[in-house]
Amino acid sequence: MIETPYLLFLGDAPDALAAKVAQGIKDWRPDYAVGQFRLEGCKADMKLPDLTIAEAVEKGVKTLVIGVANRGGVISPAWKSVLIEALEAGLDLASGLHNLLRNEPDLAAKAKELGRTLHDVRIPAVQYPIANGKKRTGKRMLAVGTDCSVGKMYTALCVEKAMREKGLKATFRATGQTGILITGDGVPLDAVIADFMAGSVEYLTPDNDADHWDLIEGQGSLFHASYSGVTMALVHGGQPDALVLCHEPDRPHMRGLPDYHLPSLEALRDLALQIARIVNPDCKVVGISANTSAMTDEEALTWCRETEARMGLPTVDPFRHGAEKLADALAAL
Amino acid sequence: MIETPYLLFLGDAPDALAAKVAQGIKDWRPDYAVGQFRLEGCKADMKLPDLTIAEAVEKGVKTLVIGVANRGGVISPAWKSVLIEALEAGLDLASGLHNLLRNEPDLAAKAKELGRTLHDVRIPAVQYPIANGKKRTGKRMLAVGTDCSVGKMYTALCVEKAMREKGLKATFRATGQTGILITGDGVPLDAVIADFMAGSVEYLTPDNDADHWDLIEGQGSLFHASYSGVTMALVHGGQPDALVLCHEPDRPHMRGLPDYHLPSLEALRDLALQIARIVNPDCKVVGISANTSAMTDEEALTWCRETEARMGLPTVDPFRHGAEKLADALAAL
Repeated sequence: MIETPYLLFLGDAPDALAAKVAQGIKDWRPDYAVGQFRLEGCKADMKLPDLTIAEAVEKGVKTLVIGVANRGGVISPAWKSVLIEALEAGLDLASGLHNLLRNEPDLAAKAKELGRTLHDVRIPAVQYPIANGKKRTGKRMLAVGTDCSVGKMYTALCVEKAMREKGLKATFRATGQTGILITGDGVPLDAVIADFMAGSVEYLTPDNDADHWDLIEGQGSLFHASYSGVTMALVHGGQPDALVLCHEPDRPHMRGLPDYHLPSLEALRDLALQIARIVNPDCKVVGISANTSAMTDEEALTWCRETEARMGLPTVDPFRHGAEKLADALAAL
Repeated sequence: MIETPYLLFLGDAPDALAAKVAQGIKDWRPDYAVGQFRLEGCKADMKLPDLTIAEAVEKGVKTLVIGVANRGGVISPAWKSVLIEALEAGLDLASGLHNLLRNEPDLAAKAKELGRTLHDVRIPAVQYPIANGKKRTGKRMLAVGTDCSVGKMYTALCVEKAMREKGLKATFRATGQTGILITGDGVPLDAVIADFMAGSVEYLTPDNDADHWDLIEGQGSLFHASYSGVTMALVHGGQPDALVLCHEPDRPHMRGLPDYHLPSLEALRDLALQIARIVNPDCKVVGISANTSAMTDEEALTWCRETEARMGLPTVDPFRHGAEKLADALAAL
């Protein structure tokens, strides 16, 4: 668990996109986002107060989160001095960078000296168990996609928001770096050792109240040759009661695999249900979540309406239209 | 790659079963098994010459393979002195033990001093790529099971033997510790990081002659809640042209999962084919391999005959009846 709230470090972000981790935290956990720290030349802006390290400490910040990708995989001297200052002022550091904080000798030494924690969320911090396949109490939804990067994290976060607004018990469960930084907790599933993948998902979604929903962030796709094993472990470790099908219309081919077409929503529904029912015979597909960011408002609405009619399932772009329909479908289960 | 031939170290094996790695090497790669080394009280016997380290070196042995499980996960002083002697005499060491040779300071220091290699086959020695899903030349068969430990390794090894006896080009591809020690090469798939599983299988089965068959050892089961993600990665990384369904009749429940029944062979056929055809639309199920070790000869033959009639697929216990039928089915593809 990463201690909250956060100071969002934007560094010298060359553009807004480079700071998408910070944006995710600000969008989904605004209470955690007390302020931002920008270096000269930073082109990203979360519209949060620019705080010095001392001001952040004064406002109760516990962790400096690196909310930006670094250039060329190097933690620059300009970054370093801020990170060291943060450690000295009493903050922990959290990062999803490929190159680990703990592998920087000066940061590691300073953290050790002062008793601070360096959270490298790209690698597991826990020795996960082997999955036991036992039925757990509480309900679970899993977002599954026709492809990678079709909006599975945003779908689960949007459904969490919609359910909480209705007073329902719901918890987003992060399975990737960005989701872990947003919520302060989760499993970096793509970095888990093969034998422990499904067990890590069981660990992430333990017994809970009968009317509580875990909303599990999906990864990869059952149809993606590179990552399907990760998705399979999510389905079998998650034992979902409900699946939401995630899709980006008009994608020309599977992400990173030019020789592979996307499956139809029908094919995803049929395969995912078969696989999920091995561990949970009552599993149902409850809705469809589209990423329509490449469409006009009218195109998006038309696509959702037509898909809803064709598939007989509530269909929305949750980021654009809200996830109420999906939340209602879960509540009705 | 582990250098061959081997001296099989049986240590103080309490029974024959504890030496099953050595037995596998002797059964499947008899040319590699030059001799055995037994300590006092050893209850296993491969019926190979008992050699001293010096005699083994004289006969051209390159590697001492630990062919036995150790008690309580400890490498005892009695073992140690033999292993050190082997390093000093010029041999490499290879082991599939959970506790790694490289974590024993005296072995690590001695190997480093003398330039020997310690092969801990339980963990990957290679940084595998992300799978690219591209079509490769050559043919591939994958053994898939209704459950774990139903004889997938033996099936692939038996088919290799039968194909080679017919003069066909075939290579067993190991994906587990025992298989790697038997052949000297392979991928310890259950220890690979999630994102690289399918890529490691592509790496294991590269482009080959058009009439060459890779016979890929299966792992886990698509129906096993704990390990299905590993199996999925094997199917998608292996891009099989042919599947052999492996099954142990009369198993009461999935291995380690008392709440789960075994799937039918029909269910395995249907799910495995759907999944394989995502990456290879021409994939076919060519036969069934049964582990009938709990049956009498007559029961085994009856079961195979009835299953063959029901499924319309050649059905054998390859260890008992040979794998000719399966080899013929592959050759006919």
